[in-house]
Amino acid sequence: MLKAKVLSIGDEILIGQIVNTNASFISNKLISIGIPVDRIVSIGDAEDKLLDELEDSIKSFDVTIMTGGLGPTHDDITKPCLIKFFADKLVIDEKVLAHVKGIFASRKVKMPDTNVEQAMVPSKAITIWNPNGTAPGIWYEIDNKIIISLPGVPFEAIAMMEEFVIPELKKKFSEKINYVLKSKTLLTTGIGESFLSEMIGDINTIIMGSKLAFLPSVYGVRLRIDVKGNNVNEADKKIGEIETKLREKIGKYIFGENDELIEKTVGNLLREKGLTISVAESCTGGMISEKFTDISGSSDYLMGGVCTYSNDSKINILGVKKDTIDSYGAVSQQTAIEMAVSVRKLFSTDIGLSTTGIAGPTGGTDDKPVGLIWIGYADNTSSFAMKFLFGNNRERNRVRSSIMALEILRKKIMKIDNNIE
Amino acid sequence: MLKAKVLSIGDEILIGQIVNTNASFISNKLISIGIPVDRIVSIGDAEDKLLDELEDSIKSFDVTIMTGGLGPTHDDITKPCLIKFFADKLVIDEKVLAHVKGIFASRKVKMPDTNVEQAMVPSKAITIWNPNGTAPGIWYEIDNKIIISLPGVPFEAIAMMEEFVIPELKKKFSEKINYVLKSKTLLTTGIGESFLSEMIGDINTIIMGSKLAFLPSVYGVRLRIDVKGNNVNEADKKIGEIETKLREKIGKYIFGENDELIEKTVGNLLREKGLTISVAESCTGGMISEKFTDISGSSDYLMGGVCTYSNDSKINILGVKKDTIDSYGAVSQQTAIEMAVSVRKLFSTDIGLSTTGIAGPTGGTDDKPVGLIWIGYADNTSSFAMKFLFGNNRERNRVRSSIMALEILRKKIMKIDNNIE
Repeated sequence: MLKAKVLSIGDEILIGQIVNTNASFISNKLISIGIPVDRIVSIGDAEDKLLDELEDSIKSFDVTIMTGGLGPTHDDITKPCLIKFFADKLVIDEKVLAHVKGIFASRKVKMPDTNVEQAMVPSKAITIWNPNGTAPGIWYEIDNKIIISLPGVPFEAIAMMEEFVIPELKKKFSEKINYVLKSKTLLTTGIGESFLSEMIGDINTIIMGSKLAFLPSVYGVRLRIDVKGNNVNEADKKIGEIETKLREKIGKYIFGENDELIEKTVGNLLREKGLTISVAESCTGGMISEKFTDISGSSDYLMGGVCTYSNDSKINILGVKKDTIDSYGAVSQQTAIEMAVSVRKLFSTDIGLSTTGIAGPTGGTDDKPVGLIWIGYADNTSSFAMKFLFGNNRERNRVRSSIMALEILRKKIMKIDNNIE
Repeated sequence: MLKAKVLSIGDEILIGQIVNTNASFISNKLISIGIPVDRIVSIGDAEDKLLDELEDSIKSFDVTIMTGGLGPTHDDITKPCLIKFFADKLVIDEKVLAHVKGIFASRKVKMPDTNVEQAMVPSKAITIWNPNGTAPGIWYEIDNKIIISLPGVPFEAIAMMEEFVIPELKKKFSEKINYVLKSKTLLTTGIGESFLSEMIGDINTIIMGSKLAFLPSVYGVRLRIDVKGNNVNEADKKIGEIETKLREKIGKYIFGENDELIEKTVGNLLREKGLTISVAESCTGGMISEKFTDISGSSDYLMGGVCTYSNDSKINILGVKKDTIDSYGAVSQQTAIEMAVSVRKLFSTDIGLSTTGIAGPTGGTDDKPVGLIWIGYADNTSSFAMKFLFGNNRERNRVRSSIMALEILRKKIMKIDNNIE
């Protein structure tokens, strides 16, 4: 069984300055080709620590992928350490040098001399092309153990993983990958873990030796199916069987798969049905339209939105009646509905969606506490608003409101009852 | 010198399903009280791996903080492993049991029997109260080595760190913490690393033995000052001296400190000056108003915004002239300026801000390639638009446009030249 290690180098990780997104990206890519990651380690910019880790890698891991410490400055220790560990030397790579010079030229910037060092590569290693930056990657291979070093900038490391590292590892280990671990995640939102669990019933009759994990977050509960098979087909078949059984039980709550975003699901539904939409946001302050427009091609269905943060703007721009706000308040069923109806009219769209609520931490009262949110919906035949009471955290309240608005929209388009459970 | 380890437990980390935000949060908290983290490790839900790590912790680390694997299901191995490792046994904690029952009662849900196990705690350990969830934390202390186990849910772990773990560790090690590592980060945006470096000049005369790291990201370049001192005062003094020298050289590019967001800086400036603002967004699709409203109290200055994603909505809602769009296109200096001028009028605010551009990946032409963004600004005396050419990545283009719009606004309010460098 192959074993991989992901090693992140940099003081900024140990002091918690940055979140290690590289490690999760790399692990995910490796497992997808049947090379499971056994261990993720982060160390600082310290030579002795890195040498220890390299020793451990050669001893116990088939593949080690390192990120960080490849820059041109004094605190970048990865290249010197690799040279030392593999008793290697640096040689100039003219292609890399031309690339580095080109990057500075295109930015119309004089290249600092230190950047020439970026083109110095280890003589015994394969150089990995970095299309997006100045630091090339390094691929050492000794006795079938592979040690790969990539830059720490996520943008650069991701491209190099996808374009070179993953395809090459797949080729290299094609015969050794004798079993496959596969995962699939089904995404739900707006419904609690306990309810899902209850509806699913006896889990063992469904997973039959595989694994099912419930992963709750502010975006909803994800259900991850983990299976092991002798090959991809077998694993896929197992996943398919489990998925079918789960969908029989809780299908209407599943809005998507894996890393799909609900804004993507809903966008596809709107496009399929030829529907247009506009959004009036108060407590979410633009988050819903931001999510919609994050998807390329969203101009097919999203005509636009208004963030009416003040009462005046709700009245003057959207046309909510002053009376409504005076009588029921800005955070009310009536205002939410009027916002949805009005924004639909303003943008001449098929559907209007709205949010108004008290995101917190201030602004709550006994009657209308922090976390109280109304979500409004309007189309050409109906309009309604639904009430939610989330928690005390402003950011979480805003995210939950946005996601819930999209889920209400999804159910409405799919003609699934919008009862809260 | 104290040494800490952060240990994350869970298959979901090794397969890259989740990003390990707990580790960075915990590391950051520990370093802030003078307990530097030497190593961050992630392992799967496997007993042998965890026992090895516990062995290593007792041998080499003063403090180990673990997260994950404390739930009530079969794949949660942390508690049984700790019991085994410390030759301990579980006893019922009535206070925790009442709390767990209360959580289910408040949700009006019948408590599954497995949750009784959440109230079973190790007899030789201190139980750490978890106000936000059902799994209490565990604090073992043997021969001055401390091993702490917290739940994996970030929300729960963060509260327990802040309310119990950090204050207790501070007390416990008050005499041993004989030096302090402190960091301060100065935040810039809209200016490249090379330009900053050039303006700063000879770095050694500034940092005098301390460290200065340049950390570029899509949000801008952060400069992190790392110093070591015999006590907090000495460390603060060193940071102060370096900061003063840096601010002399590049002060006008520094918009904030540490984890401050530019939307917060700009919001404070607007409030101080008594200015109101509204935003008209095309390519950023609501991201700027979303950022503004992410800050509690932003209703003091943000009156609202429109996301005019379609040309029709730019004309009908915002009042951009059809002629302007026909003659110059939606992505043009003229349209950007008209959007800013119009949104300012629509919301009756002191300032209007706008974005229009081609975020990509589609929609680019030879004349107007993907990454071309115009940012418009209008107040009662002037209006202008600035052109940017970012990259090919939609998400990065949207974020960079939003941040750049906020930076243009910051400089305008602070009367700093808005030349692009």
